Amino acid sequence: MENIFADRISDVPRSFIREILKVTATPEIISFAGGLPNRDYFPIDGIREACARIFDGDEKEILQYSTTEGYPLLRGFISDRYAKKKGLDVDPESIIITSGSQQGLDLIGKTLLNEGDSIIIEKPGYLGAIQAFSIYKARFHPVPVLDDGPDMDALGEILSKNRIKLYYAVPNFQNPAGISYSDEKRRAVAGLMERHNVLFVEDDPYGELRFLGEDLPSVRKYLPENTIMLGSFSKIVAPAFRLGWLSARSDIMEKIIVAKQASDLHTNYFSQRVVYRYLMDNDIDAHIAAIRKAYGSQRNAMVEGLGRRMPADFSFTLPEGGMFLWARLPEGRSSMELFDFAIGEKVAFVPGNPFYAFDPEPNTMRLNFTNSDEGTIDEGIKRLAKAYEKYIHSNK
Amino acid sequence: MENIFADRISDVPRSFIREILKVTATPEIISFAGGLPNRDYFPIDGIREACARIFDGDEKEILQYSTTEGYPLLRGFISDRYAKKKGLDVDPESIIITSGSQQGLDLIGKTLLNEGDSIIIEKPGYLGAIQAFSIYKARFHPVPVLDDGPDMDALGEILSKNRIKLYYAVPNFQNPAGISYSDEKRRAVAGLMERHNVLFVEDDPYGELRFLGEDLPSVRKYLPENTIMLGSFSKIVAPAFRLGWLSARSDIMEKIIVAKQASDLHTNYFSQRVVYRYLMDNDIDAHIAAIRKAYGSQRNAMVEGLGRRMPADFSFTLPEGGMFLWARLPEGRSSMELFDFAIGEKVAFVPGNPFYAFDPEPNTMRLNFTNSDEGTIDEGIKRLAKAYEKYIHSNK
Repeated sequence: MENIFADRISDVPRSFIREILKVTATPEIISFAGGLPNRDYFPIDGIREACARIFDGDEKEILQYSTTEGYPLLRGFISDRYAKKKGLDVDPESIIITSGSQQGLDLIGKTLLNEGDSIIIEKPGYLGAIQAFSIYKARFHPVPVLDDGPDMDALGEILSKNRIKLYYAVPNFQNPAGISYSDEKRRAVAGLMERHNVLFVEDDPYGELRFLGEDLPSVRKYLPENTIMLGSFSKIVAPAFRLGWLSARSDIMEKIIVAKQASDLHTNYFSQRVVYRYLMDNDIDAHIAAIRKAYGSQRNAMVEGLGRRMPADFSFTLPEGGMFLWARLPEGRSSMELFDFAIGEKVAFVPGNPFYAFDPEPNTMRLNFTNSDEGTIDEGIKRLAKAYEKYIHSNK
Repeated sequence: MENIFADRISDVPRSFIREILKVTATPEIISFAGGLPNRDYFPIDGIREACARIFDGDEKEILQYSTTEGYPLLRGFISDRYAKKKGLDVDPESIIITSGSQQGLDLIGKTLLNEGDSIIIEKPGYLGAIQAFSIYKARFHPVPVLDDGPDMDALGEILSKNRIKLYYAVPNFQNPAGISYSDEKRRAVAGLMERHNVLFVEDDPYGELRFLGEDLPSVRKYLPENTIMLGSFSKIVAPAFRLGWLSARSDIMEKIIVAKQASDLHTNYFSQRVVYRYLMDNDIDAHIAAIRKAYGSQRNAMVEGLGRRMPADFSFTLPEGGMFLWARLPEGRSSMELFDFAIGEKVAFVPGNPFYAFDPEPNTMRLNFTNSDEGTIDEGIKRLAKAYEKYIHSNK
C-alpha cells in the first residue's frame, strides 16, 4: 500500500512511557513509571469554589471564543510572579497561554525549526521535547548532563563545530535526571549562548517544587533577549486544565501567535478563568509549600529505600526538587531486562532508552517519587531490590 | 539581522479576521465580521450545574493527566450521536478529542502533508484551514464552490492533472459562503475520491445548525474508508472549552495520536468531564433546536434586509443553516473599499480576500448573522446600504 503519511511523522515513536503506563495500570503494581503529580495535593476545594464563583460576573463571556494570546489577567499574574519569585521583568505582552507547556514546545518547533536545523538537547533529555522537535526534523546534538548541569567541554565542542539554532534545557530538577544546573553553569551557558547567538529554551515546569537547597536564578536573568521561557500550572495547580505558557521577545512572539492561531485558535478560555479565580482566592504559596513538603518526604523515602536496599553499584541522583530521580546499573546491565523482573515483582519504572534521541545508555532508568506515598515507596523499593537480585542471579 | 524563523511560518499571515475584530471591537460598531455564536444561547445554567456535579464522584481524577485519545465516555457519546443523527457506524476507538476542530486541521497537516503535497480546498474556503495547511507548505488547488457544491468540471480537471492527497471541505453551510453540497454532489465527490484514491476531510462544525430544508447524508456514508471527519462542540455547547474531535480509519488514527502526544499530550480533561456531564444531564436536542430557531430568524432578518435595502447588483447566498452568508458586489467593485465606508457608518464585515489561498475575488465579502439579534441586524444592514451608496457615489 502506498505510504500516505508525511515524512515528519514516520520517525516519531508513540510515547514509550504511555505504552508502559498501560502495562502498569493495574492496581497491584506499584508504579514509579509515570510523571504524575500526587492527586492527594490537588486543590479540589479551591477549584470547586472557583468554578462556582466564575459564574457570578459577566458569565456568558466565560463560554465565548477568546484571544489567541490568552486571558490578560492570567498573563498579568504570571508576569507578577516572575517579578516576585525570580526578580525577572517579564512584560505580560510577551506571555502567551498555551495548552500545556508541551504545546510551547510544538510552537517553538513550528516557528523556529527548518528540517535539519541543529539543536542541542540534554542527554538524557525530556521525552516530550524529543518528540515535539522530531516532528520538525531537527538534528539533535545531545549534551551530557552531570550532577550540576551540562558537560561544559562537550557543550563548547558542539557549539564550535555546528551552527546551532537553539538549546533546550530543564535547568531545575531535570526530567528525567532530577539534576539542577549550578549558578556557575547557568552563567556560563548564558555566555556561550550569547557568543554563539543561540536561543536558550528554559523549560521550568518543576521550578517551584524545591524541597532542598536554595532557589537559583533563571538563565533568562543572564540572557534576557535570547531566552524563551516555558512554564506550567500542571504541577502547582493541576494538569487536567492543560495550562502552560511561553514567554519570548517580541519578534519571536509575533510568529508564535501566528502558529498558535493555526494550531488551535486559542487555549481553553473557561479553564483560564477557573484557574485565575482559584489563584486570586487562595494562598497559592501555602498550597505549593504543602506540595513541596510532601514531595520532599516522598523523595527522602525513595532515596533512603534505595540506599538501604540496593547494592552499592546501583547509583542514583539526589534531586533537590521536582518529581524524578535517575538511576544507573553497572555497565553492561540493562534496565529493560530489569524491567521484566520488576513487573514480575509488581513494581514499575521507565527504562532510560526513550530519553535519548539516539545512542541510549541501556543501564539507566527513571524513578518517579511524586505519585506514591512514603509507605508505598518503601514497599516498591523493596520489590525493586528483590527484582534486581533476581536479575543479577539470572542467566542474563 | 539574521532570519531565525522556519520557512513554514514566513508565508502564514496573522489572521486578517482577528485584526478586523480588533478594529471593530468598539460597542458602537455593529459587527457582522466575526464568527461568534450568539452568547445568549450559551447553556450557562447547564454548565454551571455540570461544574458543580463533576465534583460529586471520583473528584481528584478530574484534575489529573489523562489519555491522549480523550475521555472514553465523551467519545462514546459522539459515536452514538453519529449513529442516531447520521446513520453512521463510527467506532469510538476511531475518535480522538481535539483542542477544537482547528487542532484537527493541524494534526491532519502534521501527519499527512509533506512540503509541496497537492491538496484541494474550496474557493472561497475556510481561512483556518488555509492557515493550518499553509504551515505544512501544501500546494493548494482551489475548486470553486457554487450554490450546490463544488464546480464538478473544475474538480475533475484538478484531479486528472494532479496527484492530490486530500480534499478539504465544509459540505454543510460552508464557511465562508454559506452554501451546502447537494446529495448528488456528495455522491459524485465520494466517487471521484474513491477513483483517485484521495482522502476527503469532511469538516462539519455547523451541521446541526440547519434551520431550512432537510439534513443530507455525510460524505462519509458514501466514502467510509477515505473520509476523515472533524466535529466540534463550539457551536452547539460553547467555544470556550475548545472541544472538537477527529475521526479517521485506524492507520491514520495511529499517526494522529502520535502527533497529538507531541502537540499537547491530551485535550483539557476537566472540560471534557464538564461538557460530558452537561450532555448527560440536559436535553441537548432541545437546546440545539432553540439555537436553530434563533439563528433562522436572524438569517431571515439579514436576507430580508439585504433584499429590501441593497441594489439588485448586490447578490448573496441563501444559507439553510450555519452562521454566514456570502455577498458579491458587481465586478470591478472592491469590498475592501466598501469596508472603509462601512466603518464610517459603524458597521463591519469581512472582505473576501482572506478566504482565498491565492487569486482572491476582491468584490466578495462574508456576513455573519449569528452574533446579533434581529433588530441589530436590521439596523446594521441599513448602515451597510448607506455605506454602499456612499461608496458607489464616491470617486472610487
